[in-house]
Amino acid sequence: MLDERAQDERPEEGDYELREDLFDRVEDAVARGDVVALERALEPLHPADIADLLEQLDPETRQRLVALQAGEAGEFDGEILAELDEGLREEVVEALPRAALAEAVRELETDDVVDLIEDLDEDQQEAVLEALDAPDRVAVEQSLTYPEESAGRLMQRELVAVPEHWNVGQAIDHLRAQEDLPEQFYHVILVDPAMRPTGYVTLGRLMSSARDVPLKEITEDSFRTIPVLQDEAEVAYAFNQYHLISAPVVDEAGRLVGVITIDDAVDIMEEEHEEDIMRLGGVGEGSLSDRVLATVRQRIPWLAVNLVAANIAAFVIAQFDEVIARFVALAVLMPIVASMGGNAGTQSLTVAVRSIATKDLTSANLWRVIRREALVGLVNGAVFALVMGAIGVLWFGTPMLGAVIGAAMVINLFVAGLAGVGIPVLLEKLGVDPALASGAFVTTVTDVVGFFSFLGLASLVLL
Amino acid sequence: MLDERAQDERPEEGDYELREDLFDRVEDAVARGDVVALERALEPLHPADIADLLEQLDPETRQRLVALQAGEAGEFDGEILAELDEGLREEVVEALPRAALAEAVRELETDDVVDLIEDLDEDQQEAVLEALDAPDRVAVEQSLTYPEESAGRLMQRELVAVPEHWNVGQAIDHLRAQEDLPEQFYHVILVDPAMRPTGYVTLGRLMSSARDVPLKEITEDSFRTIPVLQDEAEVAYAFNQYHLISAPVVDEAGRLVGVITIDDAVDIMEEEHEEDIMRLGGVGEGSLSDRVLATVRQRIPWLAVNLVAANIAAFVIAQFDEVIARFVALAVLMPIVASMGGNAGTQSLTVAVRSIATKDLTSANLWRVIRREALVGLVNGAVFALVMGAIGVLWFGTPMLGAVIGAAMVINLFVAGLAGVGIPVLLEKLGVDPALASGAFVTTVTDVVGFFSFLGLASLVLL
Repeated sequence: MLDERAQDERPEEGDYELREDLFDRVEDAVARGDVVALERALEPLHPADIADLLEQLDPETRQRLVALQAGEAGEFDGEILAELDEGLREEVVEALPRAALAEAVRELETDDVVDLIEDLDEDQQEAVLEALDAPDRVAVEQSLTYPEESAGRLMQRELVAVPEHWNVGQAIDHLRAQEDLPEQFYHVILVDPAMRPTGYVTLGRLMSSARDVPLKEITEDSFRTIPVLQDEAEVAYAFNQYHLISAPVVDEAGRLVGVITIDDAVDIMEEEHEEDIMRLGGVGEGSLSDRVLATVRQRIPWLAVNLVAANIAAFVIAQFDEVIARFVALAVLMPIVASMGGNAGTQSLTVAVRSIATKDLTSANLWRVIRREALVGLVNGAVFALVMGAIGVLWFGTPMLGAVIGAAMVINLFVAGLAGVGIPVLLEKLGVDPALASGAFVTTVTDVVGFFSFLGLASLVLL
Repeated sequence: MLDERAQDERPEEGDYELREDLFDRVEDAVARGDVVALERALEPLHPADIADLLEQLDPETRQRLVALQAGEAGEFDGEILAELDEGLREEVVEALPRAALAEAVRELETDDVVDLIEDLDEDQQEAVLEALDAPDRVAVEQSLTYPEESAGRLMQRELVAVPEHWNVGQAIDHLRAQEDLPEQFYHVILVDPAMRPTGYVTLGRLMSSARDVPLKEITEDSFRTIPVLQDEAEVAYAFNQYHLISAPVVDEAGRLVGVITIDDAVDIMEEEHEEDIMRLGGVGEGSLSDRVLATVRQRIPWLAVNLVAANIAAFVIAQFDEVIARFVALAVLMPIVASMGGNAGTQSLTVAVRSIATKDLTSANLWRVIRREALVGLVNGAVFALVMGAIGVLWFGTPMLGAVIGAAMVINLFVAGLAGVGIPVLLEKLGVDPALASGAFVTTVTDVVGFFSFLGLASLVLL
């Protein structure tokens, strides 16, 4: 009933896509070397949109644009560098004059500089570090001592902490007396005398509480700390699971060393998404702006694994060459059994890989999930066994052929369900990312089982 | 150099996974009907973790747990309902006594109630609405007048807005005089006399500015408004792209009607990501806790589409039954060409679907991307043509067979690159989600082209 009221309306699509005429104007301005027209085209855009625009330009235009803007205007917005796809940062930094690069990185927060510098080559790293003021350089170098992909690399050092025994009035006076507060902060962190965080208070709560209320009485339940060596994927999980906006980062002794804010966590969530999808699709790393040869190199390993798998399947087929020579219909029908198994296996595996990533598949429900997937495989196998059995009979007029393909279908879809959950779980236990390798294993299993069961049954029945 | 310092350390894995002994304790307490032991086990957990635990329990234990807790303690934490997987909400609400349900929903923010109520059946919806206080009920009913998956359903009505001509001191005094401020707010929104938002000021900036500074002078550049009818996926895109923490929602006349905060946007990002992965994997909807028959029903349509595709491929093979009967090696080798094409096509399609979702693939770079994928296909085709050609010669001792499989490989991987980008782009233009349907089309193309080119060339050369 409630939904009927709204059923005629549909949500509007946004218009966040960059407009086509913008590209024309930018390409035209770059071709003519017209800095004023270029500035006019780019000026209304958010740095994130300018970065997207750079990514979508062809490499020559992109480099000329960067050189033109940095050369004439003498400056380049550091935020654009921070927003740029990792694969392009090296190229754009290369195209920037040293002075413009120095100017650009000085504008950035230290956590953005750390994120930027990770993707540059050694010379460029040195150039960026030299461009920074001494305190910022120390902060960046300190961050780089933490392992890659750890909380230590994500956090910002700019934070607001006060003694836990203070009251609201003291905290407000302290904040109002500060020269420069961090760009982004949402909580005041309470620390004990050893600088260990013990709670936090939102700015909103601080605003709305009487001056004599002790801070300890208005702390948030959501408070939790992040170990500085924690993997960034776990950090992102914690932000998502517990709806955090910011979280203090602590060293091994529990002392406050920095703060991670939700915007950094969202970036990591997006990176993890990208990685999951790309690995499931057998693409690994790589971005849309990579060149042909770089892309070839990224994809060859995955195709090579598939080639081995396909040859194993071919070897299975070769064992049945006599029966195939006598009944060519087998060659016609055998890819159907393999293909359906591959598809059903991919379904189970997608659910399993995703559930492992979201920590929804654990030892508590593993056996229930495996049983479910196997049962689903059996039922779907039976459904499509009937369909394909009928097609086999109608097409080739041999009832036995229909029975064989039906039986092989049931077997293969049952195995697909088992392998689709079992293989990712096993890989996870072995410390291999299940998104990375499950696909090749599962389709090898369903190909081999599909061909073997179909051709094997056919040999028994038809010969 | 910089990375060497840190190379020995590896980021720590977190321990956010629910512990095995917790399940034992909970199952044991439920079996014994021991409310105290159950409370003791659940008490330290965040509602999001309790929801995960409920999802991983078997259905019988889950329902007994809910009845036990709500029955004896007479209450059930509303946050757990809000955190629960959509597929389970109906079941758990069903298991709750009316009084406990009323108590649970009264604790929730109105945007969480809206999110909850969408997934319930009509009777349950009425029960939830009746449980709310009048103002909350009106707010929820109002939200439900907006289309599903629109910004209007996501936003909260609790917000802080002040006249744009005020200064810092006036804003602070106003905030401190409020009885109840929203649970979550990060900005004070400036509005003109027609209640149209014109900018916002962060609480941090407000704290650190002198009382006589006009608010207009300290507004944030990041300010942007969200149309109330905008699709939630676009809202999530805007939060991610522009690093928003909160954004005012406006009606068609530009008047302020609510606020969306980052935690809601993160939920949508996760949902969209789930949807992308599930659709790419051919699973559609569904969750890990669905029963066997529900899962069978979800997956059958995808398998049916694949069956049609596989039969088309089989029909192509059937056209070459004579040549296969004479040269059985063809039946052995033909799945390899099809499989490699399917794999390469999936690679291109994964990149394309992901790039469309992130708005990185547009008309500005479409032709460059298509050209790149086709070239990558050609080069990879050539590489694997050599490998498979050699295997063909060594295995079957026929140089011509090696040449045929090599040529078919080049053709199929080239087509795979073209189809892998072309098909998702075409579907997107037709208004179909490319994640949903591309896979079936692309593998049909690579199967048909693979079998046809290999068997067709073989017929020409070998007969």
